[in-house]
Amino acid sequence: MANILHRIGIKTMSIEEVYRALTTREGLAGWWTTDTRGEGDQTGNTVIFRFGTDGFDMKVTNLQSPGLVEWEVIDGPREWIGTTIRFELKQDRDYVIVLFKHLDWKEPVEFMHHCSTKWAIFLMSLKSLVETGKGHPFPDDVKVDNWN
Amino acid sequence: MANILHRIGIKTMSIEEVYRALTTREGLAGWWTTDTRGEGDQTGNTVIFRFGTDGFDMKVTNLQSPGLVEWEVIDGPREWIGTTIRFELKQDRDYVIVLFKHLDWKEPVEFMHHCSTKWAIFLMSLKSLVETGKGHPFPDDVKVDNWN
Repeated sequence: MANILHRIGIKTMSIEEVYRALTTREGLAGWWTTDTRGEGDQTGNTVIFRFGTDGFDMKVTNLQSPGLVEWEVIDGPREWIGTTIRFELKQDRDYVIVLFKHLDWKEPVEFMHHCSTKWAIFLMSLKSLVETGKGHPFPDDVKVDNWN
Repeated sequence: MANILHRIGIKTMSIEEVYRALTTREGLAGWWTTDTRGEGDQTGNTVIFRFGTDGFDMKVTNLQSPGLVEWEVIDGPREWIGTTIRFELKQDRDYVIVLFKHLDWKEPVEFMHHCSTKWAIFLMSLKSLVETGKGHPFPDDVKVDNWN
């Protein structure tokens, strides 16, 4: 199994605001994709993310407000199905630290390399959203290669 | 063992220019850190990268111009020592694709999460350097958290 790992620090004293950006439709649409459907604030909910015609359906599998958000990918590219996405939040002085994990890829395929870089870009968009009020969700996301 | 993987696409027809940005002092100083010492264009060379008082010493272990650059980390943070860094380059129509791998971390520690995000940021700096002539090397790199 292969994993994508990232760490960002968001300059804010409100861990609750970061948690909301990961669990509400409005929050998720503000940093990942504007085409987000559903609310992620209840375990068992499905949240649908679309990037044009492609995208992912996530089942919310674990919530521990405000420290943990976990999803299972139930539809999307075959490499993503069955993988787990976790956001672990903690306050560290004047930063909220987000430890991000996209776990249990079957193989470290080239597409995984692409997704790793894109996750970094989108997490920086989350940081920007909370710190400035403006993220860079799809379709205005930063492009990293020829697969965007 | 745990690995950091990334993929960027640089819009250029010159894979040689990307290779030079990974193997010359001037190139490396243009996207990773301005305090780069040594040339990376010969196997066996040591290249020294400093970020203020911290940094890494790399031994060039494999070069296949213009498709591969590989380093072994011989000094730096203990988690980095003995790990391998690879840049695999290929032309794909009007892009040069860089598959990046930082291989063989002993444990997926929190510092590895940080380094994964920073590698994405620095690879985007490499992309910018080749595409626009201007990268964002340390100390003008994009900060991702409270560990910069």
